[in-house]
Amino acid sequence: MKSDLDRLMAERGIDAAVVSGKVYGNPIMYYMTNGAKLTQGIVVKPARQPAVLGHYPMERDEAARSGMELVNLGEFNPRALADEAGSPLGGAVLLYQKLFERLGVSGGVAFYGEQDQGMSFALLNALQARTPGLTVISEYDGTIFDIAQLTKDSAEIEQITEVGRKTATAMRIAVEFVQSHRTEDDVMVKEDGSPLTVADVKRKVLHALIELGLEDPGGMIFAIGRDAGVPHSSGHSDDQLRLGETIVFDLFPRQAGGGYFHDMTRTFSLGYARPEIQEIYDQVKFCYDRVVAALQVNELGRSLQELTCDIFEEMGHDTLRTNPQVENGYVHSLGHGVGIELHSRPRLSGGKLNADRLVPGSVFSIEPGLYYPDRGYGVRLEDLWTVDRDGGFHCLTDFPKRLVVPVRT
Amino acid sequence: MKSDLDRLMAERGIDAAVVSGKVYGNPIMYYMTNGAKLTQGIVVKPARQPAVLGHYPMERDEAARSGMELVNLGEFNPRALADEAGSPLGGAVLLYQKLFERLGVSGGVAFYGEQDQGMSFALLNALQARTPGLTVISEYDGTIFDIAQLTKDSAEIEQITEVGRKTATAMRIAVEFVQSHRTEDDVMVKEDGSPLTVADVKRKVLHALIELGLEDPGGMIFAIGRDAGVPHSSGHSDDQLRLGETIVFDLFPRQAGGGYFHDMTRTFSLGYARPEIQEIYDQVKFCYDRVVAALQVNELGRSLQELTCDIFEEMGHDTLRTNPQVENGYVHSLGHGVGIELHSRPRLSGGKLNADRLVPGSVFSIEPGLYYPDRGYGVRLEDLWTVDRDGGFHCLTDFPKRLVVPVRT
Repeated sequence: MKSDLDRLMAERGIDAAVVSGKVYGNPIMYYMTNGAKLTQGIVVKPARQPAVLGHYPMERDEAARSGMELVNLGEFNPRALADEAGSPLGGAVLLYQKLFERLGVSGGVAFYGEQDQGMSFALLNALQARTPGLTVISEYDGTIFDIAQLTKDSAEIEQITEVGRKTATAMRIAVEFVQSHRTEDDVMVKEDGSPLTVADVKRKVLHALIELGLEDPGGMIFAIGRDAGVPHSSGHSDDQLRLGETIVFDLFPRQAGGGYFHDMTRTFSLGYARPEIQEIYDQVKFCYDRVVAALQVNELGRSLQELTCDIFEEMGHDTLRTNPQVENGYVHSLGHGVGIELHSRPRLSGGKLNADRLVPGSVFSIEPGLYYPDRGYGVRLEDLWTVDRDGGFHCLTDFPKRLVVPVRT
Repeated sequence: MKSDLDRLMAERGIDAAVVSGKVYGNPIMYYMTNGAKLTQGIVVKPARQPAVLGHYPMERDEAARSGMELVNLGEFNPRALADEAGSPLGGAVLLYQKLFERLGVSGGVAFYGEQDQGMSFALLNALQARTPGLTVISEYDGTIFDIAQLTKDSAEIEQITEVGRKTATAMRIAVEFVQSHRTEDDVMVKEDGSPLTVADVKRKVLHALIELGLEDPGGMIFAIGRDAGVPHSSGHSDDQLRLGETIVFDLFPRQAGGGYFHDMTRTFSLGYARPEIQEIYDQVKFCYDRVVAALQVNELGRSLQELTCDIFEEMGHDTLRTNPQVENGYVHSLGHGVGIELHSRPRLSGGKLNADRLVPGSVFSIEPGLYYPDRGYGVRLEDLWTVDRDGGFHCLTDFPKRLVVPVRT
């Protein structure tokens, strides 16, 4: 959690951490500015001192709502700095130098936040070359923010729990919406006899999310039949809803304005289930239950991925472990951390480099699945889980796991 | 436009341009992958050759829909590369090396697209140090994509025009929604007598945008009274709509899934207008009309900002030119390019470094405004404009400019 930053900075010799760029779509900026509705800014967190927000004059009101210490970047007159330097790059270097001087920042400075990668390369190399006493510390993996976000404080857990309740409500609304339609020749149809489509269902969910105060930045997955057999296929807008086909419905909205995510998946078959699909579903459910039963505090994420591969391979399925290019069988990782980023720590995936553990304060998904695109189906089940201070595991996704959705015929 | 990339690369000695990272929220990735619904990938555009999309195995269907030449990154087994290198950074370097080898890429390679800035610094420095014959070319400002996007092809103009029509429709729906309410003690109220709020109006607009196939990634501005006097204040959710106060309504949605933006602003006063507000409104409208009358093909963007400052200063207002820290008067730039990025080229702003011109194929906003937060009001008017091949200017925002919105009293 955020209170770990000082310890992590000390361990890594970071004298100041800088987070900059736009706020929306830049999760670490959102994290550090406490959800203030700025468009952009520069956050400087000196070691053992509170973070300071550098903002532009037009956004003084929004900046004030962050509750942070503020520096008005307008005071440095950024445009005049660029004119003085003769280039925008030179101006940006001067702006950082002036801000660092004001805040007494020098030594090892690490930079975070989304920016154009070529611009970052140009700016940080120039800044280092032109600033005596400043060394850019670069973190590629397991950055201080990756590790800080490995755990959530109680206010964060509360928010994620609330988003979970709302996400389950949205999924319930979607299922009831589908059920409110009638069938014609095994296809769901509207009042006027035209087929209900994937686009209709997604639109219904988007309206529900607005009323719930959520947004859907990534685009939900509502994938039918063969599409359900390809984990990242988001579904074709014009697809019809046919009885007996698998529907993988993966919903991962966040608080409107760029806040905390939830992530859950259910697989449905309308009206009835074909026996081979029911069998695969039961296998995925069995695997999910086995993984849940094996949850232990401080467990390695990669051990749970290994367990999942054990279970599926024993059932006769290919996995990423038996074939890194697998397209039929268990083709992805068991789960991932969820917070202000949809995919964060801890990672429940294989690879000897993954040393992430399930520790108190972690929030992560458990999402086994089996995919057979060539046979025209796929199944995934996904809930969000958290670990409390006493090492107890709690599911944050309150939605039943039942394959068949009854419909009027 | 995209067809300018080869010329720009040749002029700058770029042997290959790489765009990578996630797709959603990463406009240049969206631009190069033609709106394919991937989560991430690596685009390599070698000089004088079509761009190639490196995608992950799970996203083969979505990648195919980009219409691009494909390389399945799974073939290189990225996880094994990281294990081999002993670190994720080393693995990323090996993956780029293998991809470049496959595509015959060497020499000067430029990188674009949003990534964590510290990661970019680490990766690109390591890649350059460990790859004989490869030089990272860094562009900070006026990159090949900035310049390519300075002009739009006819398919792009058509899409932006369509988004403009829909955005005006959404604004019309919002105004009619407000008008459908009654007033009580000069405040708009709902059926049950409770006040209509900013949040109610924004929710109505969000629902309308869904039906129009648009999304609102940045969050619209619906700012009342003093908030209207601060250009970037997005408005307080709980604020009531009171007669006679200025409402700055700035709407800038894009095609759902990350496409082209529109950007427009109107200022309203419900029921009646106070004389001082009507006067300011008329001044802004006068300025807008004067700027439009002055539009000429190949005109410098900064000249129009200068013209705007001339006009407002002559009226007795402070401007950014008279005071870079100005908070009362004309406090921002005249406009900016709009496309797959909300703020792009050409820039209609001051500063001797801005050499952008209005050329055929440009799409840009014209948005003069006057702000008096201490007096509790602000006015901005904004339309999108484009220049056709023959140098003709066309407004893409079809919405009347009238301050007073009649309401039932």
